[in-house]
Amino acid sequence: MICDRKSVQKTKFDAGNFWNMNNMENIRIIAFDADDTLWENENFYLETEMKFCELMSGFMPVKKVREELLKTEIANIGIYGYGAKSFILSMIETAIRISESKVDAKTIQMIIKTGRDLINMPVKLLDGVESTLMNLQKKYKLVLATKGDLLDQERKLRNSGLAQYFSHVEVMSNKRKSDYVQLIQKLGVMPHEFLMVGNTVKSDIIPVIEAGGKAVHIPFHITWEHEQADSSVTEFIKIEKIMDLVSL
Amino acid sequence: MICDRKSVQKTKFDAGNFWNMNNMENIRIIAFDADDTLWENENFYLETEMKFCELMSGFMPVKKVREELLKTEIANIGIYGYGAKSFILSMIETAIRISESKVDAKTIQMIIKTGRDLINMPVKLLDGVESTLMNLQKKYKLVLATKGDLLDQERKLRNSGLAQYFSHVEVMSNKRKSDYVQLIQKLGVMPHEFLMVGNTVKSDIIPVIEAGGKAVHIPFHITWEHEQADSSVTEFIKIEKIMDLVSL
Repeated sequence: MICDRKSVQKTKFDAGNFWNMNNMENIRIIAFDADDTLWENENFYLETEMKFCELMSGFMPVKKVREELLKTEIANIGIYGYGAKSFILSMIETAIRISESKVDAKTIQMIIKTGRDLINMPVKLLDGVESTLMNLQKKYKLVLATKGDLLDQERKLRNSGLAQYFSHVEVMSNKRKSDYVQLIQKLGVMPHEFLMVGNTVKSDIIPVIEAGGKAVHIPFHITWEHEQADSSVTEFIKIEKIMDLVSL
Repeated sequence: MICDRKSVQKTKFDAGNFWNMNNMENIRIIAFDADDTLWENENFYLETEMKFCELMSGFMPVKKVREELLKTEIANIGIYGYGAKSFILSMIETAIRISESKVDAKTIQMIIKTGRDLINMPVKLLDGVESTLMNLQKKYKLVLATKGDLLDQERKLRNSGLAQYFSHVEVMSNKRKSDYVQLIQKLGVMPHEFLMVGNTVKSDIIPVIEAGGKAVHIPFHITWEHEQADSSVTEFIKIEKIMDLVSL
């Protein structure tokens, strides 16, 4: 289904691009987001966050701890970037701040332990991922375009068993329009030949459309607060399951 | 000067490659390591380490703290990889371990503060770097091939003002033979058309030669203990200053 068709004319996006939205014939490269598009991720972060809130429950109610942690994470994105190491550092900083430096070393050690468990989380593929990649690989060049920590993402890809399907892997420090423009150039195709598939409207959809590419949104049941988009735009396709890509 | 010429025949490396060592005519791509090849790095880490040792001096003598930190860092490379965030986490873990959990939250906060200062370190180019890149860019495709944290390295490159000289930037989670094989393939050249320039024999020289490429070593006055190679190999060229590359 096409989302927000009516709102398209209000957007600054190229109308030509819009009218070609259903024309998937030009597509040469399909790029996939990884976390929560190919495999589960956010629920492991949520689990870790809950353990952190428990550790901090002597200082503050859970709801407030979560708010404080999110505040730290957002403030730290510029300096630490995305991924598990940044998350561990943000948890430690939050613990020190909200405890007014009363948190003890043993608790900090437990925070680090939960963070290390997060890094070593198992890779659980979402339904239909492998068969879809196998199918699409016959006709398209497949690319992995994921945001996060280089080592984390390489490790997850290796453990996923999916590496063989991708002819290019791009771990990106951010997913803004300019990052996609650069990626599309690097891949040597025209923007309208590039299709991005992902679960996050803010990172996988809007900037790709802005860069002149096409995008398919597959919602995941949970999205990190910081990745939630308040946009009423835009001309992208939404499907429910990754398998639906094949019929597109 | 060619290093260890005599020892070359003892190595497993391709002799053909050796005899062509001085033949730079085939080179199409020159890849540069970044830290301590283009700009200062290790001295900022050493400064941070010294501040950490001071913070820990109530628990252990400086020399012992350094040894313990190095032990943690090496043990953590597999899970955290390289870069400043890993270094901060290793400092915190070391502080908790060597203090037998007696270190207080304020000290941990100071450790984090020194780590954040490290991330924000100024980029100081080494002598002759920019003029050399400007010169070589006319004849070769220049690539940045650096190991470390994605965001750290992108930030340093941006702050260096050198981004314009590189047609490709590769932040690598590791620099083993297989990583170079992959990089050379990605760049679409033959191994003997690829020249790597760097300050670390273990990461920038040996694996490149093993991958069939060529390598030029520019020693920096300090090298992290973990990067020191005990090798008596190999057939690479050593120069003193980056400007010497142009005459090669």
